[in-house]
Amino acid sequence: MIILKLGGSILTKKDSDESEIDDDNLKRIAHEIKESLESSNSKLVIVHGAGSFGHPPAKQYKIGEPFEIDEYPEKRIGFSKTQNAVKKLNMLICDALIGENIPVIAVPASAFMTSTNKRITDGNLDKFKQYIEKGYVPVIYGDVVIDEELEMAVISGDQIIQYLAVNLKPDTVILGTDVDGVYNKNPKLHDDAEFIELVSSLDDLDAFEQTTNVDVTGGMVGKIKELLDLADLGIESQIINADLENNIFDALENNKVKKTVISTKK
Amino acid sequence: MIILKLGGSILTKKDSDESEIDDDNLKRIAHEIKESLESSNSKLVIVHGAGSFGHPPAKQYKIGEPFEIDEYPEKRIGFSKTQNAVKKLNMLICDALIGENIPVIAVPASAFMTSTNKRITDGNLDKFKQYIEKGYVPVIYGDVVIDEELEMAVISGDQIIQYLAVNLKPDTVILGTDVDGVYNKNPKLHDDAEFIELVSSLDDLDAFEQTTNVDVTGGMVGKIKELLDLADLGIESQIINADLENNIFDALENNKVKKTVISTKK
Repeated sequence: MIILKLGGSILTKKDSDESEIDDDNLKRIAHEIKESLESSNSKLVIVHGAGSFGHPPAKQYKIGEPFEIDEYPEKRIGFSKTQNAVKKLNMLICDALIGENIPVIAVPASAFMTSTNKRITDGNLDKFKQYIEKGYVPVIYGDVVIDEELEMAVISGDQIIQYLAVNLKPDTVILGTDVDGVYNKNPKLHDDAEFIELVSSLDDLDAFEQTTNVDVTGGMVGKIKELLDLADLGIESQIINADLENNIFDALENNKVKKTVISTKK
Repeated sequence: MIILKLGGSILTKKDSDESEIDDDNLKRIAHEIKESLESSNSKLVIVHGAGSFGHPPAKQYKIGEPFEIDEYPEKRIGFSKTQNAVKKLNMLICDALIGENIPVIAVPASAFMTSTNKRITDGNLDKFKQYIEKGYVPVIYGDVVIDEELEMAVISGDQIIQYLAVNLKPDTVILGTDVDGVYNKNPKLHDDAEFIELVSSLDDLDAFEQTTNVDVTGGMVGKIKELLDLADLGIESQIINADLENNIFDALENNKVKKTVISTKK
């Protein structure tokens, strides 16, 4: 089984004032996934980010930050708005995937997961596993959940990947982002940024300057931390550039592709 | 706690070729619900139908009918399409409710329920209860679910009401439909149709001709059967015309409104 993450930055237009889908990327990626499913018939789970749909309401209402009790009604509306915004994104993504004849089924985190201090601490995956067994491709995404300590939290697609991988034991985890992988500096700002092919420990992160891809649910460093937890459990993951044609297909097919591997195997 | 059903025929345009929301009804009803929540602050659960969004794909792919194994891939696509269509309807409905400052949270049946021969036989309501306790208004809707016998099934909003009511023990169940309640004949076709104020048993149904409001998940007779099961458990329900201004508000507030009551208390 493969867990494939499609970053919000790949599927939505982050620079847009409005929540807007990146139709070209979405259609191309949906087609690449279909081609791979037809060729290798492996089990697949798709996780997508919240992108320009989920981040604005989550930020506006400061979901996940401490608040006074009299602010609760307003916070709840923020929670509802964020859930509905990511639902809309999910609906558009599923629409494109169904258009390629991929039997996707959304199983939203807000419907079955709970967090404690922003970390997923509960989420029965039986329904998830059932859909996989029946030949569906479950889709889950960055969402809001009830938090045992903070009343509510945003959980990122990256954290969901980590939770799913620990519990579903996939063969591979693939993260489709808008960069080639991990650099020691932001390659968009520094000509001398070096590409890192393997990240094995948190120590490798200390040397980093701020990376690209910063968002309210954690940027590249946040991703790598989640993935290192997996590496510790023996689950290898890879970060690839999903903006480049055929990269998703090649990664799914285990073909050669430029990537950063997160693994403790040296 | 009140369980409020908003029929698909009220929220969507059934006559339209395309899946289309009935914006005027939706906005008006959202406002009436808000007015009631502000006035009485009671706990509320909203169930909505699939309307002109869910019925076309469910019908086209014959979801819930027996099929040959080689048809399974095609059926799965139908399942996915139906889920995504009702998700879109739900997103639009939640949008209107959030616009009235109602903290709605969708908890889709496909994410946690299972049926056996088209009847819901499993569906842990802990998350549902948690949202109610925290002051949210959970929203659930006619959806597709995995069926233990048939692989897949469509479950109607009416069946969901019955399942929720049995497990959540609401004070009242209100069904907003596009008719005043139950008649002994179709009032749109028969001038001498008599309005029935109380239905107490299945025997009352035998005298019925075909009623209005027929849909692929069961029309008025299907509704009444679900509600009689509740009546047997001591849970009274009422069918009202949600097309008429203030009826939803009045029913929520227990004000006088034309209705058919389904109850075994005579």
